[in-house]
Amino acid sequence: MPGTVQSIERAAAILRMLAGGPGRLGLGEIARSLDLAKGTVHGILRTLQHVGFVEQDRASGHYQLGAALLHLGTSYLDINELRSRSINWADPLAARSGEAVRIGTVYEGRVLVVHHVFRPDDTFQTLDIGTLLPLHATALGKVLLAYRAARPAPDLERFTRRTVVAPGDLGADLARVRNAGWGAEVEELTLGEAAVAAPIRGYGGLVVGAIGVSGLVERICDSRYRPHARLVGYVREAARAISRDLGAARR
Amino acid sequence: MPGTVQSIERAAAILRMLAGGPGRLGLGEIARSLDLAKGTVHGILRTLQHVGFVEQDRASGHYQLGAALLHLGTSYLDINELRSRSINWADPLAARSGEAVRIGTVYEGRVLVVHHVFRPDDTFQTLDIGTLLPLHATALGKVLLAYRAARPAPDLERFTRRTVVAPGDLGADLARVRNAGWGAEVEELTLGEAAVAAPIRGYGGLVVGAIGVSGLVERICDSRYRPHARLVGYVREAARAISRDLGAARR
Repeated sequence: MPGTVQSIERAAAILRMLAGGPGRLGLGEIARSLDLAKGTVHGILRTLQHVGFVEQDRASGHYQLGAALLHLGTSYLDINELRSRSINWADPLAARSGEAVRIGTVYEGRVLVVHHVFRPDDTFQTLDIGTLLPLHATALGKVLLAYRAARPAPDLERFTRRTVVAPGDLGADLARVRNAGWGAEVEELTLGEAAVAAPIRGYGGLVVGAIGVSGLVERICDSRYRPHARLVGYVREAARAISRDLGAARR
Repeated sequence: MPGTVQSIERAAAILRMLAGGPGRLGLGEIARSLDLAKGTVHGILRTLQHVGFVEQDRASGHYQLGAALLHLGTSYLDINELRSRSINWADPLAARSGEAVRIGTVYEGRVLVVHHVFRPDDTFQTLDIGTLLPLHATALGKVLLAYRAARPAPDLERFTRRTVVAPGDLGADLARVRNAGWGAEVEELTLGEAAVAAPIRGYGGLVVGAIGVSGLVERICDSRYRPHARLVGYVREAARAISRDLGAARR
């Protein structure tokens, strides 16, 4: 890309590699993967270490992500307007629905979870903030796809036998989402789980995120695998309230 | 620093500025603060935007931290060995003590919270993961200082009238921590709150972190403002168990 700084792009590529891999990588592996000279990569790693973005394991000499990134990631959350406006509505939605609430936005062709409220009745849950989820197999993702906040991947990965993997089927599903104003996912990512989501609109009405509830399929859906209208109503009300706070026109 | 890549250092400085400030900054402000030409800063910002580390607000043209940082920060947590080894011990400590549990390590002269388990009896708590706390006014920080995992700041900030701000007093406090094998903080950061912490040792016995419980002073301490021996015992047992998992010799 013209006008960008090559060494910063390379530094970002190294950080991504460290985030995506097994955790620790040696200088040689990184240089080979990026097809760069070891000396070049070493200079970048030294700098990244100096600024706290990577750490070097004393025993093995291998590199891993550094603590500065955790602090920057937390700061991103603190200033994220979608998240800060959503928090006040996510807690009541969890209380009313009795289910876990998640708020997502698009990042690199996936759903980035920017806020997560645990299901009120259970303490053993894993915090999903910062997690990336597939667009086509989650209610949050389908809503983001339906309103053109993201484009579907060329290959739709199958997670269960219910995952929608045919582009035509997904297109029909997204048309239903646009028509109804909300989306659902029933055992398409994980067997036994289902979710409902609705779009969050920002200034000018553009969809900037989605909010939804997820939980056991027998609690989210009726006997015909359709989400309970009561839950859909709660989710849509919360989405509309956040959209108003973000400056979208009332609709 | 010789051997480092200047543009990466400048990029890191911009990210830190965006994390520390009001959230969004204009090109001119950033250039002025770093004493760099606008063109130079613009090239760095374009690149950071391209890799997802910053986002530009459409309306104002101002820059803010980007979503890639949240994902990198979460990946740091996933890979962090202190955290992954601690998680299994933090939940039982919260259950036994009935208090919130936090695990911290040193980052830039402060305590970086890498794990946080809510107090079991209360749902309205704020997640502290990624937060930076002062070393000299927290139990976690005093433990890290006592075992030389960090050095005290030249100026000790006062938070309450009980904060230890005289270097000599802090030195005596840290000697007591080393002697007893645990540290406490009683209304030194926030009125009405107290905490107890113990060191986590890694391979070779080096202190790499601290684990502690914190809560209302009347629950943590007895009527003479001393932490309950029962709580101290729970914290020390958890710290020893994590240290064993991390490969420290039994002691």
